[in-house]
Amino acid sequence: MEDDCIFCAIVAGRAEASIVDEDDVAVTFMDLNPVTPGHLLVVPRTHAAGLEDLDGETSAHVWSVGHRMARALRRSGLRCDGINVFVADGEVAFQEVFHFHLHVFPRYAGDGFTIGADWKERERALLEADAEAVREGLGAGV
Amino acid sequence: MEDDCIFCAIVAGRAEASIVDEDDVAVTFMDLNPVTPGHLLVVPRTHAAGLEDLDGETSAHVWSVGHRMARALRRSGLRCDGINVFVADGEVAFQEVFHFHLHVFPRYAGDGFTIGADWKERERALLEADAEAVREGLGAGV
Repeated sequence: MEDDCIFCAIVAGRAEASIVDEDDVAVTFMDLNPVTPGHLLVVPRTHAAGLEDLDGETSAHVWSVGHRMARALRRSGLRCDGINVFVADGEVAFQEVFHFHLHVFPRYAGDGFTIGADWKERERALLEADAEAVREGLGAGV
Repeated sequence: MEDDCIFCAIVAGRAEASIVDEDDVAVTFMDLNPVTPGHLLVVPRTHAAGLEDLDGETSAHVWSVGHRMARALRRSGLRCDGINVFVADGEVAFQEVFHFHLHVFPRYAGDGFTIGADWKERERALLEADAEAVREGLGAGV
């Protein structure tokens, strides 16, 4: 547990949150600034800043809870015609609280959520080079 | 396998893709229209449209591969100062190929990826009502 981590404080019951579910490994609560009503965060009880220091077993469990939550959202009566799951790992990737968390939120037409990028088809030779680089990364003890 | 599914075709080796990794359950390949160079898709071999029909064991495995890929991207030599993981489940949630897939992509300053929403703090009483609705959804056999 990290003293100045708001999610550690929520997990420990020292900070206010609207808790949906908890078990020995993960806690699920409502995001205070939701994209849409029903926006959930699933966090591991144990502090880990992100994907680099989160152990594999805990990670898989947090994901599995998130999957179950997605199914619950579709059965909740809240408006939910689709689901996004989002992880922000690192400040440049829009992470704001440095305790790993899975965002799970309902989607519906006109909900105002947008994503943007400079999407364009990438040449096959470049994709093959990218794939080779990732394979080298896999070989670096991940 | 679905005859008209491009990801089923890639998994079966009938369509071109830059494959990074494969095992008995999941296949990882480069997104043809990447947000950033290194943008990966992790898919289950077995066809499932989304989180509703994807079984829990396969789902956890696909996630675990995605986690390992995130770590590989940071060690790949590709520009990667952060990572986003994204799932689009349903057309309204920006899903375009209806075979479940995990997006994993590198982030760096100035990469052009944006998200937008009408974020504002939600009243505690509403968050508590949302949490109760999700708990009811959990009770509906998810």
